[in-house]
Amino acid sequence: MKESTIGSWLADLGDRTPTPGGGGAAALLAATGASLVGMVSSYTTGGKWADREEDMLKVKAEADLLRDQALALADADADAFAAVGSAYGLPRGTDEDKAARREAIQAALKGAAQPPVDTGGVAARVVELAEGLVERGNPNVVSDVAVAASSAAAALESAIVNIEINAGSIKDTEVVDGLRAEVDKLTGAIERARRVVERVREGLRG
Amino acid sequence: MKESTIGSWLADLGDRTPTPGGGGAAALLAATGASLVGMVSSYTTGGKWADREEDMLKVKAEADLLRDQALALADADADAFAAVGSAYGLPRGTDEDKAARREAIQAALKGAAQPPVDTGGVAARVVELAEGLVERGNPNVVSDVAVAASSAAAALESAIVNIEINAGSIKDTEVVDGLRAEVDKLTGAIERARRVVERVREGLRG
Repeated sequence: MKESTIGSWLADLGDRTPTPGGGGAAALLAATGASLVGMVSSYTTGGKWADREEDMLKVKAEADLLRDQALALADADADAFAAVGSAYGLPRGTDEDKAARREAIQAALKGAAQPPVDTGGVAARVVELAEGLVERGNPNVVSDVAVAASSAAAALESAIVNIEINAGSIKDTEVVDGLRAEVDKLTGAIERARRVVERVREGLRG
Repeated sequence: MKESTIGSWLADLGDRTPTPGGGGAAALLAATGASLVGMVSSYTTGGKWADREEDMLKVKAEADLLRDQALALADADADAFAAVGSAYGLPRGTDEDKAARREAIQAALKGAAQPPVDTGGVAARVVELAEGLVERGNPNVVSDVAVAASSAAAALESAIVNIEINAGSIKDTEVVDGLRAEVDKLTGAIERARRVVERVREGLRG
Protein backbone atom coordinates (compact mmCIF):
# COMPACT_ATOMS: atom_id res chain seq x y z
CA MET A 1 0.00 0.00 0.00
CA LYS A 2 2.80 2.37 0.95
CA GLU A 3 4.20 2.33 -2.60
CA SER A 4 0.84 2.76 -4.39
CA THR A 5 -0.07 6.19 -5.65
CA ILE A 6 -3.01 7.77 -3.87
CA GLY A 7 -4.95 8.01 -7.13
CA SER A 8 -4.51 4.36 -8.09
CA TRP A 9 -5.11 3.02 -4.57
CA LEU A 10 -8.35 4.95 -4.22
CA ALA A 11 -9.41 3.87 -7.72
CA ASP A 12 -8.84 0.23 -6.66
CA LEU A 13 -10.74 0.89 -3.43
CA GLY A 14 -13.66 2.14 -5.51
CA ASP A 15 -13.72 -0.85 -7.86
CA ARG A 16 -15.40 -4.22 -7.65
CA THR A 17 -12.35 -6.02 -6.29
CA PRO A 18 -12.19 -7.76 -2.88
CA THR A 19 -9.24 -5.66 -1.71
CA PRO A 20 -8.52 -2.98 -0.83
CA GLY A 21 -11.79 -2.57 1.06
CA GLY A 22 -13.05 -1.16 4.33
CA GLY A 23 -10.15 -2.65 6.29
CA GLY A 24 -7.58 -0.90 4.14
CA ALA A 25 -9.58 2.32 4.37
CA ALA A 26 -9.65 2.06 8.18
CA ALA A 27 -5.88 1.65 8.15
CA LEU A 28 -5.47 4.68 5.88
CA LEU A 29 -7.62 6.76 8.26
CA ALA A 30 -5.48 5.66 11.21
CA ALA A 31 -2.27 6.43 9.30
CA THR A 32 -3.60 9.90 8.41
CA GLY A 33 -4.34 10.61 12.07
CA ALA A 34 -0.90 9.39 13.09
CA SER A 35 0.76 11.60 10.47
CA LEU A 36 -1.06 14.70 11.71
CA VAL A 37 -0.06 13.98 15.31
CA GLY A 38 3.50 13.77 13.99
CA MET A 39 3.13 17.07 12.19
CA VAL A 40 1.85 18.93 15.25
CA SER A 41 4.65 17.54 17.41
CA SER A 42 7.17 18.59 14.72
CA TYR A 43 5.86 22.15 14.97
CA THR A 44 6.29 22.11 18.75
CA THR A 45 10.09 22.05 18.93
CA GLY A 46 12.81 24.68 19.24
CA GLY A 47 12.54 28.28 20.46
CA LYS A 48 9.61 28.80 22.81
CA TRP A 49 8.90 25.07 22.88
CA ALA A 50 12.34 24.09 24.17
CA ASP A 51 10.77 23.03 27.51
CA ARG A 52 8.76 20.25 25.80
CA GLU A 53 10.96 19.48 22.81
CA GLU A 54 12.15 16.18 24.22
CA ASP A 55 8.55 14.99 24.74
CA MET A 56 7.56 16.17 21.28
CA LEU A 57 10.39 14.32 19.58
CA LYS A 58 9.17 11.17 21.33
CA VAL A 59 5.62 11.84 20.12
CA LYS A 60 6.93 12.36 16.58
CA ALA A 61 8.90 9.10 16.65
CA GLU A 62 5.90 7.17 17.96
CA ALA A 63 3.58 8.82 15.41
CA ASP A 64 5.88 7.76 12.55
CA LEU A 65 5.87 4.22 13.91
CA LEU A 66 2.06 4.19 14.25
CA ARG A 67 1.71 5.44 10.67
CA ASP A 68 3.91 2.62 9.38
CA GLN A 69 2.07 0.06 11.52
CA ALA A 70 -1.25 1.24 10.13
CA LEU A 71 -0.02 0.95 6.54
CA ALA A 72 1.33 -2.54 7.22
CA LEU A 73 -2.07 -3.45 8.73
CA ALA A 74 -3.75 -2.49 5.46
CA ASP A 75 -1.64 -5.13 3.75
CA ALA A 76 -2.29 -7.65 6.54
CA ASP A 77 -6.01 -6.98 6.19
CA ALA A 78 -5.90 -7.60 2.45
CA ASP A 79 -4.03 -10.90 3.01
CA ALA A 80 -6.46 -12.02 5.72
CA PHE A 81 -9.42 -11.10 3.55
CA ALA A 82 -7.96 -13.06 0.63
CA ALA A 83 -7.61 -16.09 2.96
CA VAL A 84 -11.33 -15.89 3.79
CA GLY A 85 -12.14 -15.83 0.08
CA SER A 86 -9.91 -18.87 -0.54
CA ALA A 87 -11.56 -20.77 2.31
CA TYR A 88 -15.02 -20.11 0.89
CA GLY A 89 -13.68 -21.37 -2.45
CA LEU A 90 -12.67 -24.81 -1.06
CA PRO A 91 -14.42 -27.90 -2.53
CA ARG A 92 -17.62 -29.10 -0.90
CA GLY A 93 -18.18 -32.35 -2.77
CA THR A 94 -18.10 -34.82 0.12
CA ASP A 95 -19.07 -34.48 3.79
CA GLU A 96 -15.38 -34.46 4.67
CA ASP A 97 -14.81 -31.66 2.15
CA LYS A 98 -17.67 -29.71 3.68
CA ALA A 99 -16.38 -30.16 7.23
CA ALA A 100 -12.84 -29.18 6.21
CA ARG A 101 -14.19 -26.14 4.36
CA ARG A 102 -16.29 -25.05 7.36
CA GLU A 103 -13.28 -25.33 9.60
CA ALA A 104 -11.04 -23.43 7.16
CA ILE A 105 -13.64 -20.65 6.87
CA GLN A 106 -13.88 -20.33 10.65
CA ALA A 107 -10.08 -20.20 10.99
CA ALA A 108 -9.83 -17.59 8.22
CA LEU A 109 -12.60 -15.45 9.75
CA LYS A 110 -10.82 -15.47 13.11
CA GLY A 111 -7.61 -14.44 11.33
CA ALA A 112 -9.44 -11.67 9.49
CA ALA A 113 -10.73 -10.20 12.75
CA GLN A 114 -7.20 -9.42 13.95
CA PRO A 115 -6.14 -6.65 11.52
CA PRO A 116 -9.18 -4.46 12.35
CA VAL A 117 -8.58 -5.03 16.08
CA ASP A 118 -4.95 -3.95 15.62
CA THR A 119 -5.95 -1.00 13.41
CA GLY A 120 -8.34 0.09 16.14
CA GLY A 121 -5.49 -0.19 18.66
CA VAL A 122 -3.27 2.06 16.54
CA ALA A 123 -6.09 4.59 16.18
CA ALA A 124 -6.78 4.53 19.93
CA ARG A 125 -3.13 5.35 20.58
CA VAL A 126 -3.34 8.21 18.05
CA VAL A 127 -6.24 9.60 20.09
CA GLU A 128 -4.16 9.45 23.29
CA LEU A 129 -1.31 11.33 21.62
CA ALA A 130 -3.76 13.90 20.21
CA GLU A 131 -5.20 14.43 23.71
CA GLY A 132 -1.73 15.39 24.91
CA LEU A 133 -1.37 17.94 22.10
CA VAL A 134 -4.56 19.97 22.61
CA GLU A 135 -2.95 22.07 25.36
CA ARG A 136 0.74 21.40 24.80
CA GLY A 137 0.96 21.51 20.99
CA ASN A 138 1.83 24.65 19.01
CA PRO A 139 -1.50 26.55 18.86
CA ASN A 140 -0.80 27.60 15.25
CA VAL A 141 -1.53 24.01 14.21
CA VAL A 142 -4.17 23.14 16.82
CA SER A 143 -6.77 22.58 14.08
CA ASP A 144 -4.59 19.71 12.89
CA VAL A 145 -4.94 18.07 16.31
CA ALA A 146 -8.69 18.03 15.70
CA VAL A 147 -8.23 16.62 12.19
CA ALA A 148 -5.97 13.92 13.66
CA ALA A 149 -8.65 13.04 16.23
CA SER A 150 -11.42 13.03 13.59
CA SER A 151 -9.38 10.72 11.37
CA ALA A 152 -8.65 8.42 14.29
CA ALA A 153 -12.33 8.38 15.30
CA ALA A 154 -13.28 7.36 11.75
CA ALA A 155 -10.58 4.66 11.84
CA LEU A 156 -12.00 3.38 15.15
CA GLU A 157 -15.58 3.38 13.89
CA SER A 158 -14.47 1.63 10.68
CA ALA A 159 -12.49 -0.95 12.63
CA ILE A 160 -15.58 -1.62 14.75
CA VAL A 161 -17.90 -2.30 11.81
CA ASN A 162 -15.21 -4.45 10.21
CA ILE A 163 -14.95 -6.46 13.42
CA GLU A 164 -18.72 -6.70 13.78
CA ILE A 165 -19.39 -7.91 10.24
CA ASN A 166 -16.75 -10.62 10.77
CA ALA A 167 -17.98 -11.57 14.23
CA GLY A 168 -21.42 -12.18 12.75
CA SER A 169 -20.05 -15.23 10.89
CA ILE A 170 -17.81 -16.62 13.66
CA LYS A 171 -19.36 -19.57 15.56
CA ASP A 172 -16.90 -19.77 18.46
CA THR A 173 -18.68 -17.79 21.17
CA GLU A 174 -15.50 -17.24 23.17
CA VAL A 175 -13.87 -15.56 20.18
CA VAL A 176 -17.01 -13.50 19.57
CA ASP A 177 -17.09 -12.39 23.22
CA GLY A 178 -13.43 -11.38 22.97
CA LEU A 179 -14.18 -9.32 19.86
CA ARG A 180 -17.13 -7.64 21.59
CA ALA A 181 -14.82 -6.63 24.44
CA GLU A 182 -12.44 -5.10 21.86
CA VAL A 183 -15.34 -3.19 20.32
CA ASP A 184 -16.22 -1.75 23.75
CA LYS A 185 -12.64 -0.56 24.23
CA LEU A 186 -12.54 1.05 20.80
CA THR A 187 -15.91 2.70 21.44
CA GLY A 188 -14.43 4.39 24.50
CA ALA A 189 -11.58 5.75 22.36
CA ILE A 190 -14.11 7.25 19.91
CA GLU A 191 -15.67 9.23 22.75
CA ARG A 192 -12.24 10.52 23.71
CA ALA A 193 -11.53 11.52 20.11
CA ARG A 194 -14.82 13.44 19.94
CA ARG A 195 -13.85 15.28 23.11
CA VAL A 196 -10.52 16.30 21.53
CA VAL A 197 -12.38 17.81 18.57
CA GLU A 198 -14.75 19.67 20.91
CA ARG A 199 -11.90 21.05 23.00
CA VAL A 200 -10.08 22.30 19.89
CA ARG A 201 -13.25 23.94 18.58
CA GLU A 202 -13.94 25.59 21.95
CA GLY A 203 -10.38 26.95 21.87
CA LEU A 204 -10.79 28.30 18.32
CA ARG A 205 -13.99 30.10 19.36
CA GLY A 206 -11.88 31.69 22.13
CA MET B 1 -1.53 14.57 -4.71
CA LYS B 2 -3.03 11.91 -6.99
CA GLU B 3 0.41 10.89 -8.27
CA SER B 4 2.15 10.81 -4.86
CA THR B 5 2.66 7.46 -3.21
CA ILE B 6 0.65 6.96 -0.02
CA GLY B 7 3.84 6.46 1.99
CA SER B 8 5.54 9.64 0.80
CA TRP B 9 2.41 11.79 1.00
CA LEU B 10 1.73 10.72 4.59
CA ALA B 11 5.41 11.25 5.48
CA ASP B 12 5.13 14.81 4.11
CA LEU B 13 1.90 15.28 6.03
CA GLY B 14 3.73 14.28 9.21
CA ASP B 15 6.65 16.64 8.67
CA ARG B 16 7.23 20.26 9.59
CA THR B 17 6.21 21.60 6.19
CA PRO B 18 3.27 23.96 5.57
CA THR B 19 1.59 21.57 3.11
CA PRO B 20 0.14 19.04 2.97
CA GLY B 21 -1.72 19.77 6.19
CA GLY B 22 -5.18 19.41 7.66
CA GLY B 23 -6.85 20.63 4.46
CA GLY B 24 -5.18 17.94 2.38
CA ALA B 25 -6.05 15.35 5.02
CA ALA B 26 -9.72 16.43 4.95
CA ALA B 27 -9.69 16.00 1.18
CA LEU B 28 -8.14 12.54 1.48
CA LEU B 29 -10.85 11.54 3.97
CA ALA B 30 -13.56 12.76 1.58
CA ALA B 31 -11.92 10.92 -1.34
CA THR B 32 -11.78 7.72 0.72
CA GLY B 33 -15.48 7.98 1.52
CA ALA B 34 -16.30 8.62 -2.13
CA SER B 35 -14.25 5.59 -3.22
CA LEU B 36 -16.09 3.30 -0.80
CA VAL B 37 -19.47 4.54 -2.02
CA GLY B 38 -18.23 3.72 -5.52
CA MET B 39 -17.16 0.26 -4.39
CA VAL B 40 -20.52 -0.58 -2.81
CA SER B 41 -22.40 0.60 -5.90
CA SER B 42 -20.05 -1.52 -8.08
CA TYR B 43 -21.03 -4.58 -6.04
CA THR B 44 -24.72 -3.82 -6.55
CA THR B 45 -24.98 -4.53 -10.29
CA GLY B 46 -25.92 -7.55 -12.38
CA GLY B 47 -27.87 -10.67 -11.37
CA LYS B 48 -30.20 -10.04 -8.45
CA TRP B 49 -29.46 -6.31 -8.57
CA ALA B 50 -30.59 -5.83 -12.16
CA ASP B 51 -33.58 -3.77 -10.93
CA ARG B 52 -31.27 -1.07 -9.53
CA GLU B 53 -28.22 -1.43 -11.77
CA GLU B 54 -28.93 1.76 -13.68
CA ASP B 55 -29.09 3.77 -10.44
CA MET B 56 -25.96 2.10 -9.12
CA LEU B 57 -23.95 2.89 -12.25
CA LYS B 58 -24.95 6.54 -11.77
CA VAL B 59 -23.83 6.40 -8.13
CA LYS B 60 -20.52 4.86 -9.22
CA ALA B 61 -19.94 7.56 -11.84
CA GLU B 62 -20.72 10.32 -9.34
CA ALA B 63 -18.54 8.71 -6.68
CA ASP B 64 -15.59 8.60 -9.09
CA LEU B 65 -16.14 12.28 -9.87
CA LEU B 66 -16.38 13.19 -6.17
CA ARG B 67 -13.15 11.32 -5.47
CA ASP B 68 -11.34 13.24 -8.20
CA GLN B 69 -12.84 16.53 -7.01
CA ALA B 70 -11.64 15.82 -3.48
CA LEU B 71 -8.11 15.06 -4.65
CA ALA B 72 -8.06 18.25 -6.74
CA LEU B 73 -9.25 20.17 -3.66
CA ALA B 74 -6.23 18.90 -1.73
CA ASP B 75 -4.04 20.61 -4.33
CA ALA B 76 -6.20 23.75 -4.29
CA ASP B 77 -5.93 23.83 -0.51
CA ALA B 78 -2.13 23.60 -0.66
CA ASP B 79 -2.01 26.47 -3.21
CA ALA B 80 -4.36 28.63 -1.14
CA PHE B 81 -2.37 27.92 1.99
CA ALA B 82 0.87 28.87 0.22
CA ALA B 83 -0.76 32.16 -0.81
CA VAL B 84 -1.52 32.95 2.85
CA GLY B 85 2.10 32.27 3.74
CA SER B 86 3.31 34.56 0.91
CA ALA B 87 0.98 37.34 2.06
CA TYR B 88 2.31 37.13 5.63
CA GLY B 89 5.81 37.35 4.13
CA LEU B 90 5.16 40.70 2.38
CA PRO B 91 7.29 43.69 3.48
CA ARG B 92 6.05 45.86 6.32
CA GLY B 93 8.59 48.70 6.24
CA THR B 94 6.26 51.65 5.60
CA ASP B 95 2.65 52.31 6.56
CA GLU B 96 1.68 51.70 2.90
CA ASP B 97 3.52 48.38 2.99
CA LYS B 98 1.68 47.44 6.15
CA ALA B 99 -1.72 48.36 4.72
CA ALA B 100 -1.01 46.46 1.49
CA ARG B 101 0.17 43.45 3.48
CA ARG B 102 -2.92 43.48 5.68
CA GLU B 103 -5.14 43.60 2.62
CA ALA B 104 -3.21 40.81 0.89
CA ILE B 105 -3.46 38.64 4.02
CA GLN B 106 -7.22 39.19 4.24
CA ALA B 107 -7.67 38.34 0.56
CA ALA B 108 -5.53 35.22 0.92
CA LEU B 109 -7.41 34.09 4.05
CA LYS B 110 -10.73 34.44 2.23
CA GLY B 111 -9.29 32.40 -0.65
CA ALA B 112 -8.04 29.75 1.76
CA ALA B 113 -11.53 29.32 3.26
CA GLN B 114 -12.95 28.09 -0.04
CA PRO B 115 -11.19 24.69 -0.44
CA PRO B 116 -12.40 23.43 2.98
CA VAL B 117 -15.93 24.66 2.19
CA ASP B 118 -15.80 22.75 -1.11
CA THR B 119 -14.26 19.67 0.55
CA GLY B 120 -17.10 19.75 3.05
CA GLY B 121 -19.56 19.94 0.16
CA VAL B 122 -18.04 16.86 -1.48
CA ALA B 123 -18.16 14.97 1.83
CA ALA B 124 -21.80 16.00 2.40
CA ARG B 125 -22.69 14.56 -1.01
CA VAL B 126 -20.83 11.34 -0.13
CA VAL B 127 -23.05 11.08 2.96
CA GLU B 128 -26.19 11.46 0.83
CA LEU B 129 -25.02 8.70 -1.51
CA ALA B 130 -24.15 6.47 1.46
CA GLU B 131 -27.65 7.04 2.90
CA GLY B 132 -29.10 5.63 -0.30
CA LEU B 133 -26.91 2.52 -0.05
CA VAL B 134 -27.77 1.38 3.50
CA GLU B 135 -30.95 -0.37 2.31
CA ARG B 136 -30.35 -0.64 -1.42
CA GLY B 137 -26.65 -1.62 -1.54
CA ASN B 138 -25.42 -5.23 -1.66
CA PRO B 139 -25.59 -6.35 2.01
CA ASN B 140 -22.32 -8.29 1.64
CA VAL B 141 -20.52 -4.93 1.60
CA VAL B 142 -22.81 -2.97 3.93
CA SER B 143 -19.96 -2.48 6.41
CA ASP B 144 -18.24 -0.46 3.68
CA VAL B 145 -21.21 1.91 3.59
CA ALA B 146 -20.50 2.63 7.27
CA VAL B 147 -16.79 3.12 6.60
CA ALA B 148 -17.71 5.53 3.78
CA ALA B 149 -19.96 7.49 6.15
CA SER B 150 -17.31 7.53 8.91
CA SER B 151 -14.70 8.81 6.46
CA ALA B 152 -17.08 11.47 5.19
CA ALA B 153 -17.96 12.52 8.76
CA ALA B 154 -14.26 12.93 9.54
CA ALA B 155 -13.82 14.95 6.33
CA LEU B 156 -16.74 17.17 7.35
CA GLU B 157 -15.43 17.67 10.88
CA SER B 158 -11.95 18.42 9.50
CA ALA B 159 -13.35 20.87 6.97
CA ILE B 160 -15.19 22.62 9.79
CA VAL B 161 -12.12 23.14 11.98
CA ASN B 162 -10.16 24.27 8.94
CA ILE B 163 -12.88 26.82 8.16
CA GLU B 164 -13.08 27.93 11.79
CA ILE B 165 -9.35 28.47 12.27
CA ASN B 166 -9.35 30.60 9.11
CA ALA B 167 -12.50 32.50 10.02
CA GLY B 168 -10.84 33.50 13.30
CA SER B 169 -8.40 35.72 11.35
CA ILE B 170 -10.86 37.15 8.81
CA LYS B 171 -12.04 40.71 9.66
CA ASP B 172 -14.88 40.99 7.12
CA THR B 173 -17.92 40.08 9.24
CA GLU B 174 -20.06 39.31 6.20
CA VAL B 175 -17.55 36.72 5.03
CA VAL B 176 -17.31 35.29 8.55
CA ASP B 177 -21.11 35.03 8.79
CA GLY B 178 -21.18 33.23 5.42
CA LEU B 179 -18.57 30.77 6.67
CA ARG B 180 -20.54 30.15 9.87
CA ALA B 181 -23.60 29.31 7.76
CA GLU B 182 -21.47 26.80 5.82
CA VAL B 183 -20.30 25.27 9.09
CA ASP B 184 -23.93 24.82 10.18
CA LYS B 185 -24.76 23.02 6.92
CA LEU B 186 -21.75 20.73 7.26
CA THR B 187 -22.65 20.01 10.89
CA GLY B 188 -26.04 18.74 9.73
CA ALA B 189 -24.30 16.39 7.30
CA ILE B 190 -22.17 14.96 10.14
CA GLU B 191 -25.34 14.03 12.03
CA ARG B 192 -26.65 12.27 8.94
CA ALA B 193 -23.36 10.39 8.54
CA ARG B 194 -23.53 9.22 12.16
CA ARG B 195 -27.04 7.95 11.55
CA VAL B 196 -25.80 5.93 8.54
CA VAL B 197 -23.18 4.26 10.76
CA GLU B 198 -25.81 3.50 13.42
CA ARG B 199 -28.21 2.01 10.88
CA VAL B 200 -25.49 -0.24 9.45
CA ARG B 201 -24.48 -1.39 12.92
CA GLU B 202 -28.10 -2.09 13.88
CA GLY B 203 -28.41 -4.18 10.72
CA LEU B 204 -25.22 -6.13 11.49
CA ARG B 205 -26.55 -6.93 14.97
CA GLY B 206 -29.65 -8.28 13.20
